[in-house]
Amino acid sequence: MSDDLESLRAQIDAIDRELIAVLARRAAMTAAIGTIKQVNGLPLYAPEREAQMFAERRSQAQAAGVDPDLLEDVLRRVMRDSYSSQQARFPATGDRRRPVVIVGGHGALGRLFADFFARSGYTVRILERNDWARAAQLVAGAGTVLIAVPIADTCRVIASLPALPADCVLADVTSIKRAPLAAMLAAHPGPVLGLHPMFGPDVRSLAKQVVIACPGRAPEASQWLREQFAVWGAVLREESAEQHDRAMVLIQAMRHFSSMLYGLFLAREGADLGALLRLSSPIYRLELTMVGRLFAQSPELYADIILAAESLPDLVDHYRATLDDLLAMVRKGDRAALIAAFEDAAAWFGDMAPTLLHESSELLRKAHDARDPLREVRR
Amino acid sequence: MSDDLESLRAQIDAIDRELIAVLARRAAMTAAIGTIKQVNGLPLYAPEREAQMFAERRSQAQAAGVDPDLLEDVLRRVMRDSYSSQQARFPATGDRRRPVVIVGGHGALGRLFADFFARSGYTVRILERNDWARAAQLVAGAGTVLIAVPIADTCRVIASLPALPADCVLADVTSIKRAPLAAMLAAHPGPVLGLHPMFGPDVRSLAKQVVIACPGRAPEASQWLREQFAVWGAVLREESAEQHDRAMVLIQAMRHFSSMLYGLFLAREGADLGALLRLSSPIYRLELTMVGRLFAQSPELYADIILAAESLPDLVDHYRATLDDLLAMVRKGDRAALIAAFEDAAAWFGDMAPTLLHESSELLRKAHDARDPLREVRR
Repeated sequence: MSDDLESLRAQIDAIDRELIAVLARRAAMTAAIGTIKQVNGLPLYAPEREAQMFAERRSQAQAAGVDPDLLEDVLRRVMRDSYSSQQARFPATGDRRRPVVIVGGHGALGRLFADFFARSGYTVRILERNDWARAAQLVAGAGTVLIAVPIADTCRVIASLPALPADCVLADVTSIKRAPLAAMLAAHPGPVLGLHPMFGPDVRSLAKQVVIACPGRAPEASQWLREQFAVWGAVLREESAEQHDRAMVLIQAMRHFSSMLYGLFLAREGADLGALLRLSSPIYRLELTMVGRLFAQSPELYADIILAAESLPDLVDHYRATLDDLLAMVRKGDRAALIAAFEDAAAWFGDMAPTLLHESSELLRKAHDARDPLREVRR
Repeated sequence: MSDDLESLRAQIDAIDRELIAVLARRAAMTAAIGTIKQVNGLPLYAPEREAQMFAERRSQAQAAGVDPDLLEDVLRRVMRDSYSSQQARFPATGDRRRPVVIVGGHGALGRLFADFFARSGYTVRILERNDWARAAQLVAGAGTVLIAVPIADTCRVIASLPALPADCVLADVTSIKRAPLAAMLAAHPGPVLGLHPMFGPDVRSLAKQVVIACPGRAPEASQWLREQFAVWGAVLREESAEQHDRAMVLIQAMRHFSSMLYGLFLAREGADLGALLRLSSPIYRLELTMVGRLFAQSPELYADIILAAESLPDLVDHYRATLDDLLAMVRKGDRAALIAAFEDAAAWFGDMAPTLLHESSELLRKAHDARDPLREVRR
């Protein structure tokens, strides 16, 4: 028995060496493709081509008796690394002779964009708090000025900008859009574009990352900037600033508020975090993870996001009223009322509820793949 | 340019065909290992062996210029399928001549366990609501009776069981443990074991799944049952029923309550779900997913979990008091107080906050791999 097992394991070892060799050769090929894309100004991420490629590979897998979902998952993971290796340098879609000025360029998101512009051949100038005396000099000749300062400072910083070249694109990357857009339109008579990158500064690639674009003024003059984002692999979605901010209060301010509320509640209960983690199923661990992750980040940032949302206190009032209704049902043991409330919310989610259940189950399977239950306990 | 690109893409196509062939051969090998494991009674999941295998493969990858994290992620995904293919049949650790009775064996979790026992060679008998007249007959000679009925019915069902064989293991899989354990100890003078599987009925394999085990009576007599779970790949963690229930009110009842609260709040606001999804960053989509998934499931199940947690109303009161404190800070625009509250919660999470941030970032990268931003908008 032990001999058979050893022999089979040796064969798997040999197969895995082949797998490693295949991955290494594939990486060399995608790096070569990256160079061609860069020289010819092709975007990093080509959705239609990818969809076609996956369809072909899935049917090849099927024919070979390999689960198509397995192959697609493996290829998508491999492609994450291909994207990273394909972005040493990017083509420029704008005029490289015109500098790019990043206001707040030493912040996390500012650094990220400074890096991408630099890798696309632009001269990047950083305008930080202490550089204000030289501001007029720094923006001279700029093709774009990108505001990447903390949310609480955005409008004040925009208002204090020196005059920019008439055709310079003034853009920002703040997570609210109405107020910054109004401030930019007032400060600069030229092209204006509001951006909200839907990702944090820790991303390694912009491939498939979404950026919300809110039109300000003269969209044709900022077309090159939109194309630059596409070259980096990002997907731009156009939204009105009003629609954006309305959704964002719920998506962002209210979710941060409720995560902060849940974390503070647990802390005040003096709950045993070790026991919570030990006794968590994968889904509870994920929920705890989504709350806990907040507290490894900047208190100032989250306080400011919460305080910047003017309509938040009213929303929290509504939330509290809903809480009181549910609590009354629980205290009365009113099962029928709880079920009716559940069904009201289920009706609002509609077809998306099963979609989200499926999506989360798939993600939980991926989380489970990465699990080591023994290490969890030791830690 | 286009010729070069076509030639490189053809080479990648050829490499991917090799990849598919390697995966197919690997699957054949792991299936053969599965057969040997089954014949020899070896567990599906061997944590130490896996850890050693990953260490070796990672250094082989490193030597070949392949990112070790990439190789580990790929192998872990491949192994998910190996586990599934290795579990057509399992060895039995108990006496196969003694039937296994699943009370509630037509429910989702009951069916899952009925299936695993049957694949291990036991005769499985289902005892459902309508079979009660034949209950004494069904439990005759049973090696174990497993209670898998809805949480609200558990204690009543246990109390109405007929007399069991003296050495029969009476066990349950309810998500609370104190009350069912007490009911089982009162109903049966023989071996008793409380189990809480930390997974849903949709899992395809028990490999690496955690099961909490709360001791009842005569643990040596239920040792075979624990070993049976290990053969299926599960990891058992022993906890006292008290510790379990205390943590579970927070992990389960309180999290379900707050997810239900958030979903009902969104529904009552009449929020635009399409806009929320369109404007979500990956992390917000994940948060919305974790709330929305609840509403594709059984209202009765969640109402009962919430109502079964006796201390929940008091906890919700504390939660509400914390909400009021935070809301007062927001209304006053008291940034310093918000930051101090944030820091209190951060102190409670301690070293785990960065760990959870890292874990969630890794998971968000996996979610991002699977993303197709174009399809998200169309849907």
